[in-house]
Amino acid sequence: VSSTGQTSTGDPPAWVAAYGIGAPATDGSRKRALARFGDQTVDLDHLQSIGTLRSTGIPEGVFSGPSLNAFMALGPAAWRALDEYLFELVQRGAPPEALHPISSVRLFLPFEVADYCDFYASEYHASNMGRILRPGSDPLPAAWHTIPIGYHGRAGTILVSGTPVSRPAGVIAAAGGAGDGPGYAPSRRLDLEVELGYVVGVGSAPGEPVGAGQAHEHIFGVVVVNDWSARDIQSFEYQPLGPFLGKSFATSISPWVVRLDALRPLRTDGPDQGADAPPHLSCPQPRAIDIELELSVGDTVLSRPKARHLYWSPEQFVAHLTSNGASLRTGDLLATGTISGPGPESWGSLMELSWGGERPVPLGDGTERAWLEDGDTVIIRARGGSAMPFDIGEVVGTIESPARNEEAVPN
Amino acid sequence: VSSTGQTSTGDPPAWVAAYGIGAPATDGSRKRALARFGDQTVDLDHLQSIGTLRSTGIPEGVFSGPSLNAFMALGPAAWRALDEYLFELVQRGAPPEALHPISSVRLFLPFEVADYCDFYASEYHASNMGRILRPGSDPLPAAWHTIPIGYHGRAGTILVSGTPVSRPAGVIAAAGGAGDGPGYAPSRRLDLEVELGYVVGVGSAPGEPVGAGQAHEHIFGVVVVNDWSARDIQSFEYQPLGPFLGKSFATSISPWVVRLDALRPLRTDGPDQGADAPPHLSCPQPRAIDIELELSVGDTVLSRPKARHLYWSPEQFVAHLTSNGASLRTGDLLATGTISGPGPESWGSLMELSWGGERPVPLGDGTERAWLEDGDTVIIRARGGSAMPFDIGEVVGTIESPARNEEAVPN
Repeated sequence: VSSTGQTSTGDPPAWVAAYGIGAPATDGSRKRALARFGDQTVDLDHLQSIGTLRSTGIPEGVFSGPSLNAFMALGPAAWRALDEYLFELVQRGAPPEALHPISSVRLFLPFEVADYCDFYASEYHASNMGRILRPGSDPLPAAWHTIPIGYHGRAGTILVSGTPVSRPAGVIAAAGGAGDGPGYAPSRRLDLEVELGYVVGVGSAPGEPVGAGQAHEHIFGVVVVNDWSARDIQSFEYQPLGPFLGKSFATSISPWVVRLDALRPLRTDGPDQGADAPPHLSCPQPRAIDIELELSVGDTVLSRPKARHLYWSPEQFVAHLTSNGASLRTGDLLATGTISGPGPESWGSLMELSWGGERPVPLGDGTERAWLEDGDTVIIRARGGSAMPFDIGEVVGTIESPARNEEAVPN
Repeated sequence: VSSTGQTSTGDPPAWVAAYGIGAPATDGSRKRALARFGDQTVDLDHLQSIGTLRSTGIPEGVFSGPSLNAFMALGPAAWRALDEYLFELVQRGAPPEALHPISSVRLFLPFEVADYCDFYASEYHASNMGRILRPGSDPLPAAWHTIPIGYHGRAGTILVSGTPVSRPAGVIAAAGGAGDGPGYAPSRRLDLEVELGYVVGVGSAPGEPVGAGQAHEHIFGVVVVNDWSARDIQSFEYQPLGPFLGKSFATSISPWVVRLDALRPLRTDGPDQGADAPPHLSCPQPRAIDIELELSVGDTVLSRPKARHLYWSPEQFVAHLTSNGASLRTGDLLATGTISGPGPESWGSLMELSWGGERPVPLGDGTERAWLEDGDTVIIRARGGSAMPFDIGEVVGTIESPARNEEAVPN
């Protein structure tokens, strides 16, 4: 049995290491660190207060803060010590007063986000975007197979799953209809993006690149990400500095961070990189991770993207990001960009599913969607691939009307 | 006399409100908040500990932390109360034990950076970049006069003035010379950018845009910024998501944050915006700020950019950034982008001064520079325009050789 509860036979794991921040209903609103035990949570701050975590060597107070950052900063030895302790606790039973059903716990953003980067790591997605937005030219940017293309997003607007998302307003090309000039109006092309995000636990020193082979010492875990996108705001603003307000209004993440170690049984070969990736980004196979995602709007499943289609791995994100000497910090979030596969059944955005809005997709209630409408609830679920279909997490968000944005006037 | 020590006659101010974080040599390495009094600093934590700040109503402990964030978050009433108290203290003399010469104080990053945005607010700079990089097409992006174009940069690599900057490495188009393919190598086109940066003190609520007319209630002050840029890394990576590793290795800022209120006598009319800016971004004149900058490499002054040439104002940055519902946080840094004027004597980057590297600029020692060399020290100084030439600040950085980057190999 491995440190994360995996047996070597491919059986489903007894426990998947996942950590979050919550406040049990029975104990006021104080945030503390929790581990997920199926449909229960275990209060890590309580376990530490009664002395049962002493064998892990984890310092006092690490679990009483409002984020996982202090624990994440301790590094892989501490993470693994706790993973192993909790795996044993699952077998023998946790003290009842430390257990709270998930349904009774209010969950918060699990970590304080330092820098948020978003990559563009799916070749199918990048190709689709090129075909839709720049028809007639090469769909992939010239550098796409050489480096993981990415950009920095807004860390301060990352929201925990369940937080409503107000429809953004912005300057769009024809605010009042065809023939009009640009104007400020609520977005009419509001989209979602199915992504995963890798969470940095241990930072790195300035000027000291981290090779792909060391990246696992820095990456604490993974969350499910919905990178909400206003396509009309984005298309008006993005030349030449990239996405800005079309993305910055909100990014939603799942409340549980699943440990990278727990995904080891899901490692699988990613797309062949041949000689395209330069040596400093090389990453041995199995490089990809077999996570299956499921995108729903309301009750209708729209697609099932597969993370094993991603061209670039989380270890390559870390190697690239630090290759210029930039440092990592505890709480950095490195998202994959939209995860899409070869056909519509695995495309991870409405932009692709409706092909730029031209072909609305049907919902189960008889309506159709080119873009999100107010009141729509978007659910992205992640689980292990068919060999080990354990639950990884989900991120949910409902679009609210932009009442307050419409009132915005300068004073 | 105004709250920031200005008289109404245009005389130079008796004191310019500027705050930072430092550790006096005589008192160990403990960081605390300081105010700048000419070539002296006054220890605000000490003043509070002896009870002399009681009249300001500022809570205990705000000045003992390692950043100005707690003070900045208190808001304009507290900022102005302290500005006024210190203005009076300058007249009557501070307690000697609270004073430390600047030369004896080690200065640190003055605030913890939340999100870092960088705009593209100089029409001269944006036009020059278009002419150099995209000759033959319209030099300005289509949206440029309608919204402030910008992007998010890396907050975790913002450095205080004086910190050395390692030459970044990255994937560049012809790493081994003409005809070669792309490869990983130290940047050969390392540049600087002369900028100012506005520091957010008071955050804003999600979904509640801040109009330009309210922005002064959120902006605490200004720093001088050098947005180091590796042009070869940037040009390889920037399609379609904008600058990423070409900028993320380092951004340097001055150690003193000068209060926005202190710049009120420098307000001046900015370029006419006619009917181009949409109503939600409208901002009454005088919109611009008459700050003169001076760019030197070593002992040679290369140019004198003027902030009054900027098309977009800090209040418009805030209005734009929040117009989609995104919130602000204490510590957000909103930089202007390179400040350039109509002619080479006021251009704020080597990219422009050497016109893409084609026309190296002479230094006083007989050498010339198309791009920065290892050992070069870049100094950017800022002061009020001719009507009120008070010192605002400076940011200094020296380029170090990329020894450690060259060793980077995957393991």
